[in-house]
Amino acid sequence: MDAGEHELIARIRKAVGGPAGATLVGIGDDAAVYEPAGDLELLTCDAFVEDVHFRRSFAPLRAIGAKFIVSNVSDVAAMGGFPARAVVSLGVPEDMSAADVDELYAGMLDAAARYGVEIVGGDVVASPGGLLASVAMIGTVGRERVVTRAGAVVGDAILATGRFGASEAGLRALSHGLEEAGLVRAATRRHLEPVARIAEAQAFLDVATPHAMIDVSDGLASEVRHLADESGVGMRVRKDRIPVAPEAVEIGRLLGVDPLELALGSGEEFELLVTIPASEAERTIEHVCAVTGSDVTCIGEVVERSEGCIMVGPGGDAEPLPRVGYEHLAAPRG
Amino acid sequence: MDAGEHELIARIRKAVGGPAGATLVGIGDDAAVYEPAGDLELLTCDAFVEDVHFRRSFAPLRAIGAKFIVSNVSDVAAMGGFPARAVVSLGVPEDMSAADVDELYAGMLDAAARYGVEIVGGDVVASPGGLLASVAMIGTVGRERVVTRAGAVVGDAILATGRFGASEAGLRALSHGLEEAGLVRAATRRHLEPVARIAEAQAFLDVATPHAMIDVSDGLASEVRHLADESGVGMRVRKDRIPVAPEAVEIGRLLGVDPLELALGSGEEFELLVTIPASEAERTIEHVCAVTGSDVTCIGEVVERSEGCIMVGPGGDAEPLPRVGYEHLAAPRG
Repeated sequence: MDAGEHELIARIRKAVGGPAGATLVGIGDDAAVYEPAGDLELLTCDAFVEDVHFRRSFAPLRAIGAKFIVSNVSDVAAMGGFPARAVVSLGVPEDMSAADVDELYAGMLDAAARYGVEIVGGDVVASPGGLLASVAMIGTVGRERVVTRAGAVVGDAILATGRFGASEAGLRALSHGLEEAGLVRAATRRHLEPVARIAEAQAFLDVATPHAMIDVSDGLASEVRHLADESGVGMRVRKDRIPVAPEAVEIGRLLGVDPLELALGSGEEFELLVTIPASEAERTIEHVCAVTGSDVTCIGEVVERSEGCIMVGPGGDAEPLPRVGYEHLAAPRG
Repeated sequence: MDAGEHELIARIRKAVGGPAGATLVGIGDDAAVYEPAGDLELLTCDAFVEDVHFRRSFAPLRAIGAKFIVSNVSDVAAMGGFPARAVVSLGVPEDMSAADVDELYAGMLDAAARYGVEIVGGDVVASPGGLLASVAMIGTVGRERVVTRAGAVVGDAILATGRFGASEAGLRALSHGLEEAGLVRAATRRHLEPVARIAEAQAFLDVATPHAMIDVSDGLASEVRHLADESGVGMRVRKDRIPVAPEAVEIGRLLGVDPLELALGSGEEFELLVTIPASEAERTIEHVCAVTGSDVTCIGEVVERSEGCIMVGPGGDAEPLPRVGYEHLAAPRG
């Protein structure tokens, strides 16, 4: 690192700019000060560790920075809210320059601007290992629009935005050094430049009664299980309805991997899983697609807890929903 | 690590307990949900990296966890506010067990209870290096009670709570393996179990017109410079008025280090520096001492920016305020 803590903070402060709108005090004091807005507030945080969550050899610093923000925005979206403010803790390794930190912040600020987030403070420390970050984000949500993971009801339809597997496919394309052409390029973009589904969550809330919602950060199968566990229900997923991304099909073909496995296990998709009354499914899919341009698919239904989380084939054959996806600590991704 | 991510989160959730009071959704969802309270809100975060901020060989995990919380509470105190909620990002190294994480959380929860903080969420990830943490904290503050670093006025008295140098003295006692007796034990306690000055900050606000306030996390000299830089003023510190902790005197004697150097450079003291109109100094010192039991000392006065930050001896001899204290990145502590 070619700059001291104070110089680095001065650079970040200049890049971020002064406090705006309802923020009275931004970067550079002991804490940010702002007027709370909205019925209720949301608070979430995500940690990112080099070589666990990202590799600097695969991803440009701008993309890494943007993902720090998008990941939190996605959590806010999945509660039914809008993101507002963030603070950023950075652990900077010896081999990063001040210009590298500028790039990382440029990515964070791009994403922040895209989602209406103001970066209002943070901490910068030395890291003896790789690059570290933790972003905490405040959001706002209307009292009648909070959607937790815990409200799924037996009989609900399970809807999903988007198509699955492209992020994992992109990661594998990058790690295998596949030539960046056609769908491979699309997949690496999906991995490097994910999108958070704020508009989609709001569209669900405008037209339906979402009972439970979650964003897909650790993989589709894993998040279906989360919804089931938190709601105390079972989930029946229709194998032939899982929307597999064309990028996953193509890279699965190139690498000899089952695209469905990619779709079920792909992390950082940031798509939404929503359960709503089955009677609302058809018009909801129509409305959300029309308003947002996103695909929305009914992938199955909520069942009794005793049924567990199962995947049913077109012939009616049932198997346990595969335990794939990203779990930290004891069970690293193979 | 002998537990997976989900098991660890389940343990943490059990230790923390369900949401309370104005918190509607706590740990276990995409984000915490709560009713904002108070005129204005505060948001701050602090990052902690093993072997940079703490050593597991010196400090019990409970003390490490407590300091994660106290450090943020101290930032909230220094803005004039009260702490309310926190989210915790943890990077857990391979050599820590689930029981170790329980201990760390026990320390965080002890400190959180002491200061009225509710832990409402977080993230747990694997760390390929040492233990990592970042805590983000929400606080509340009355609109008329916000004190920034930027308001110091020429002529103000500079007041400090407490006595300085004990935390650094304690760290050195631990790293030199000094026998834990008498003042050495007191110093290591000051290092391992620091206190945030919420009551003192409020007492200043009750009786005086604080123009600027900061907590001493990087060292007294360094924070005096911060106040000066942010306020666009100079600071004249009286060498013979700097309240040196008896622990610093004793450990300075044992290790052959100037206690004043310890006092000026000691990080994580979490005492407050406040500038107030000189006319209010006497009664303020009296009031804050009486109400809180803390020492309060006038250590100097705010001067014109052109004078810079200086330290004046009892004979009137002036020298630049030493550039000691903790700065991350380019200038590690010697």
